[in-house]
Amino acid sequence: VDGEAMKRAAASAAADLVESGMLLGLGSGSTAAQFVRVLGERLQAGVLRGVRGVPTSQATAALAARIGIELIDLPASGVDLAIDGMDEVDARLDAVKGLGGAATREKIVAASASRFVLIGDESKVVDELARRTPVPVEVLAFGFERTRSLLIAAGSRPTLRGGAEPFLTDEGNPILDCALQRGVDPAAFAQALDATPGVVGHGLFLGLASAAIIAGAGGVRRL
Amino acid sequence: VDGEAMKRAAASAAADLVESGMLLGLGSGSTAAQFVRVLGERLQAGVLRGVRGVPTSQATAALAARIGIELIDLPASGVDLAIDGMDEVDARLDAVKGLGGAATREKIVAASASRFVLIGDESKVVDELARRTPVPVEVLAFGFERTRSLLIAAGSRPTLRGGAEPFLTDEGNPILDCALQRGVDPAAFAQALDATPGVVGHGLFLGLASAAIIAGAGGVRRL
Repeated sequence: VDGEAMKRAAASAAADLVESGMLLGLGSGSTAAQFVRVLGERLQAGVLRGVRGVPTSQATAALAARIGIELIDLPASGVDLAIDGMDEVDARLDAVKGLGGAATREKIVAASASRFVLIGDESKVVDELARRTPVPVEVLAFGFERTRSLLIAAGSRPTLRGGAEPFLTDEGNPILDCALQRGVDPAAFAQALDATPGVVGHGLFLGLASAAIIAGAGGVRRL
Repeated sequence: VDGEAMKRAAASAAADLVESGMLLGLGSGSTAAQFVRVLGERLQAGVLRGVRGVPTSQATAALAARIGIELIDLPASGVDLAIDGMDEVDARLDAVKGLGGAATREKIVAASASRFVLIGDESKVVDELARRTPVPVEVLAFGFERTRSLLIAAGSRPTLRGGAEPFLTDEGNPILDCALQRGVDPAAFAQALDATPGVVGHGLFLGLASAAIIAGAGGVRRL
């Protein structure tokens, strides 16, 4: 079973949660893109009707529009169901997200969802969060050097994504990929990030997901 | 004693804290502008030398450049002394700032300062914070309606600054001026804002200032 097939298996299982008339949060990245494709097929086949989406990135918006999914701005009432991939997930359903660069928008949508479901393959399941994957932190360009020093003080080793040609988010901000120093608790780090004035958003999704659909060689399981 | 004279009196007293060679955080708004002017006079007179500044807005950067103050980006080590006006300050030196629209940058600089000193006139001193003045909250345009509903749920009545032609910050984001509902604690509201994914920054400056210089009809006093 190759990687794309596993992503598609998880995406199909997630699509089984969708009911006609729902407003969906559409995540970003390759696994979320598989979900958008499966959704498009079911809408085209008439299995689902009247489903609309809120895209979490310009890339997802372009894909969904091409497929013919109706898109709207996130309303005050949020979405019924948000589906998104992850870089890491643990047994508590806490996740690291945002290697794709869309963590801030993804979190706004995920936090607005009645149900937020993560999808991915077995390689994303970890015992301890944020040991293998750095935490993406979107920061303002204003005060960049200062903010970076605060992220070091909070217990991480930050690397500017893109280096000499910095990657910029859909909001136009740079990302610092922050490897946690040994012994630093992700929850404490998340709290420090939330309290740091130059931080716009970050990829620690704690207490947000209600399920994770994991595809492996042996089939699909739920966390 | 008129308003401008009081602002100037407070600005002059703040300039007395400046030593040659210092790196200063330069606030935004009319009172902070008075400080920049007094600073320029003392540099021109040779009373102060080698003072550099980090401006907190494009407006302050333009004023300081015109006056001839050397400007640099905020370094990792922060500034020695930040001087800024406020909309409200209480006896604990907690403040509401940002009616000028620069609260996010102002807070990045203020939080980086070895000393952060507020300047203003007696009309800014309040018994209870954020009863009279709304709290400016800079939010992302993405998810705007959802974020506004979360600010209502957190205990405020938000108004979009600029209305049909929204004001945008130097970062390009809209501002919701959030009047606190009766009985809502500013500290609890600030914590809710910090934890809301669509919020970029806000005007509650709690535990940041080390002094406030207040000008009144009877002279200048310190809080």
